[in-house]
Amino acid sequence: MIEIKRFNSKDSDFDSNLEKLLSFENAQDDAVELTVSKILADIKQRKDAALIEYTNRFDRLSAVSGKDFELTQDHLQQSLTALPSSQRTALEQAAERVRSYHEKQLMHSWQYIDSEGTLLGQKITPLDRVGLYVPGGKASYPSSVLMNAIPAKVAGVKELIMVVPTPNGERNHMVLAAAAICRVDRVFTIGGAQAVGALTYGTETVPSVDKIVGPGNAYVAAAKRRVFGIVGIDMVAGPSEILVICDGRTNPDWIAMDLFSQAEHDELAQSILLSPDAAFLDQVMHSLNRLLTEMPRRDVIRASLENRGALIQVHDLDEACAIANRIAPEHLELSIEQPENWIDKIRHAGAIFLGRNACEALGDYCAGPNHVLPTSRTARFSSPLGVYDFQKRSSLIQVSQQGAAKLGEIASVLAMGEGLQAHALSAEYRYKN
Amino acid sequence: MIEIKRFNSKDSDFDSNLEKLLSFENAQDDAVELTVSKILADIKQRKDAALIEYTNRFDRLSAVSGKDFELTQDHLQQSLTALPSSQRTALEQAAERVRSYHEKQLMHSWQYIDSEGTLLGQKITPLDRVGLYVPGGKASYPSSVLMNAIPAKVAGVKELIMVVPTPNGERNHMVLAAAAICRVDRVFTIGGAQAVGALTYGTETVPSVDKIVGPGNAYVAAAKRRVFGIVGIDMVAGPSEILVICDGRTNPDWIAMDLFSQAEHDELAQSILLSPDAAFLDQVMHSLNRLLTEMPRRDVIRASLENRGALIQVHDLDEACAIANRIAPEHLELSIEQPENWIDKIRHAGAIFLGRNACEALGDYCAGPNHVLPTSRTARFSSPLGVYDFQKRSSLIQVSQQGAAKLGEIASVLAMGEGLQAHALSAEYRYKN
Repeated sequence: MIEIKRFNSKDSDFDSNLEKLLSFENAQDDAVELTVSKILADIKQRKDAALIEYTNRFDRLSAVSGKDFELTQDHLQQSLTALPSSQRTALEQAAERVRSYHEKQLMHSWQYIDSEGTLLGQKITPLDRVGLYVPGGKASYPSSVLMNAIPAKVAGVKELIMVVPTPNGERNHMVLAAAAICRVDRVFTIGGAQAVGALTYGTETVPSVDKIVGPGNAYVAAAKRRVFGIVGIDMVAGPSEILVICDGRTNPDWIAMDLFSQAEHDELAQSILLSPDAAFLDQVMHSLNRLLTEMPRRDVIRASLENRGALIQVHDLDEACAIANRIAPEHLELSIEQPENWIDKIRHAGAIFLGRNACEALGDYCAGPNHVLPTSRTARFSSPLGVYDFQKRSSLIQVSQQGAAKLGEIASVLAMGEGLQAHALSAEYRYKN
Repeated sequence: MIEIKRFNSKDSDFDSNLEKLLSFENAQDDAVELTVSKILADIKQRKDAALIEYTNRFDRLSAVSGKDFELTQDHLQQSLTALPSSQRTALEQAAERVRSYHEKQLMHSWQYIDSEGTLLGQKITPLDRVGLYVPGGKASYPSSVLMNAIPAKVAGVKELIMVVPTPNGERNHMVLAAAAICRVDRVFTIGGAQAVGALTYGTETVPSVDKIVGPGNAYVAAAKRRVFGIVGIDMVAGPSEILVICDGRTNPDWIAMDLFSQAEHDELAQSILLSPDAAFLDQVMHSLNRLLTEMPRRDVIRASLENRGALIQVHDLDEACAIANRIAPEHLELSIEQPENWIDKIRHAGAIFLGRNACEALGDYCAGPNHVLPTSRTARFSSPLGVYDFQKRSSLIQVSQQGAAKLGEIASVLAMGEGLQAHALSAEYRYKN
C-alpha cells in the first residue's frame, strides 16, 4: 500500500496541511557554495588549465588540451546516424513541432511617431551567444536539448554552445543526435561548475557567452546563481510538480499513471490530485497500488508519492481552481468536461493541459510548448522558457524639434524637482540654445 | 581642470584600457549580507512586531502598530493637491506619455489548432500583486514611481503596494503625488530590508506580493537577491551609464551637459564619449571644464568623470558602433547625422537616443519608454523594465483523439529512450486503452 496523504478541503486543518505539503526550501549547502566559489575563481584566472584539471578529476578523463573537449559536427552527425530510426524519427518530429510552436513567440520590433513628430519604438535583437548546459549520466535527456536549443535558434542566436559532461568518457548518443537536429554550433564535453565558469569567463578554448540555460545538479545551480549578472541565466528550477483536477469521469488508471509520470522523476517531485468525487479518489488510490508493481522506477515513485503527493477531495471544480491558483503548479491537468470553460479561472500555472487526452507526457516531449516551466509556485510571476528569453529589447527615442521643446519643459521641471540640474540643463539646451 | 581619461582606439593598449574602464565589480559586503539575512528571518517569524521595531529604529519613528505605516488615498491626494501646478502638470504629462508608450507592450493570449486538431496556445495573465520599492531621503525620485508603477498598472496588476521609508517622519510629497497619479493601491512608510521582508512574507498589516520592483540601497539590493525565487524581482541595478557617439557636429556644450547628467547621479556613474573627431573631443573637454563650475552637483560630477569617464577618439562611426556593442551601455546617444541609418549596427543597448535632440534626460522623465534599463553590460541579455515584466505566460495544450495517437507515439519512443516508463505509459493509455 502506498501511504499517500488524503485531505478534504472542508477539514478545519486543510489550510495548514496544504501549506505544509507545498513547503519546500531549496536550502543552500555551504559546502557546495564554497566549492563552487573556488572553482569559478580558478576557471576565471587559469582558464583552460583549470578546466582541464577539474574535468579530468571529476569526470575521470585524461585530456591534455582544451581542444580535447570539443566534439565536431561530424561527431554529432555520427550519433544521429547511429540512432535507431524510430528514435531519430521521434526526435525529428518532436523538434519540428516544438519549432513550429516557438516560431509563434517571436517578438518583432515596432515604432511609431507621436503627434509632435517624435519617434518612439522598441528594437528586438537576439542574443549573440548562448550556452546550453546538458547534464551527463542518468539525467541526460535529449528532450531537454530540444526544449532549450530550439527557442534559442528560433530567436536567431548566432552561436549556441552546448556543454555536456562525459563521465568516464561515456557519451549519450541520443543527446548528441538531438544537438545535431537542433543545429547546435559547438559542443564541449565539460560539466559542473567548471563548465559554467568556462561559459561565463571564457577560456582559450571555450568562448564566453551572454546567457546560460539548462538544468543541472546542485553545483551547476549554485554556479549559475553566482554568475548571474555577468551572464543571464534561466530560472533555477526546483523539483517538478503536477496538479491534476479531475471531475471523476476520467479512467482512474490514466490519472494514476499521470501522477506516476511526475513522481518517477525524483523523490522530491510532487503529484497532487484534486477531485470533488470521493469515490473517484478511492479508485485512483486503487489504481496507484495496482499499477505501482509494474513500474521499473517504483521505488522513486513510492518515495515521491509518500513524501510529497496528496489526493484531495474538494467541494467542487470552482474550489479546485482556487486551490490550483494557490499552488501555482508547474503542470496543471484539467481532466474535466469542457475544460475550455474553466481556463479563465486559472491564473497561475506553467502549462495547462486541457481535457482527458492531454497528459503531461505529451507536453514533456512533443506537443510543441516548452517543457522548461516555472516550479515551486514561481508560476505566480514567471513563464515557460521561450523564444523571448533569447531576444531582448532596446528602446528607441528620436525627438523632433517640436518634441524637444515640449518634452524638454516637462523634463526640466521634474529634474529640478529631483535636484538634478544637469538633467534639466541638458533638456533645456535642446530648445533654448 | 577635470582629469578625465582620454583614449585613442588605435593605441596598442586601447583594448586593455577599455576593459579596465568598464570593469566594475558589484562586490557583496559580508556585513550587509549578515544584517539582511537576520532582518529577513526576523520579519518572516515575528511579522509586524519585527517590522515596527526595525522601522522605529532605522527611521527614528515611534509607530506602535503596523497600521501606523499605512498612508491612505487621502494622504496621496493631499500631496498631489499641495504640489505647485507646474510640477503637477509635468508629472501628469509624463505619466500620460509613459502610459501611452507602455500600452504598446501589452502581450495578448493566442492559440491555434494544428492539422491533427490539437489546440496549442499561450495564455497571458497579469501578476496578482506587486510591491514597488521607493527609496527615501535624497534618492527619492517621483520619476521612479511613474516608471515602475505605470507598466504594472498597464499590465493589469490587481494590487500595487508601494513602500517608501520616511526617515524622521519626512514625506516626499512629489513621490506621494506620483503615487496618486499612478493609482498605486496601498502605500506603507517602511523601507530597507525589513520592507522587502514584509512584502515577501507578508505581515499582519502588509500583504505578501508576487514580485518586488524598484531601486534601493545596498541593503535593499541584498534583500531582493535573497528573496528572489520566493517572489520575482526586477534586475539588481549597477551604477548608471551613458555612452555618447558623436560625429563632431553637435554643440559641444550639449554633449558636455549630457555627460554631466549621467555623472551627477553618483560617483560611480559612467559617462563615455566616442568621436572620430579629435578637435571635437578637445572642444567637449573645454566645455566640461567651463560648465562644471556652474553645476551645483560639481563635486559628484567631477569624481564620476575622473573615476569612470572617458573621451575616446575612434577611427570612424563604424568602429564606434562596434565599441558600443562591446560596452553594451545602459543609455546610448547617437548624436550624428541620419542616425536611423546606424540603428541596425547597434545590437546591445538599453535605450538608444537617435539624433542631436534626443538627450538622455528626455528619456529619464517623459519621452515614454522606461528609464529602468539594464546596466553593467547586461543589455547583452536583458531589456528595459516593461509591461511584459508584469504579465506572464501559461502554455495551453488540448489534444484531439487523432493527436493523442500521433503525439503519444512520439512521446512514448522518447520517454523509453530516457528511461521514463510512466511517461511512456501515460501517453500510450490515451490511444491504446
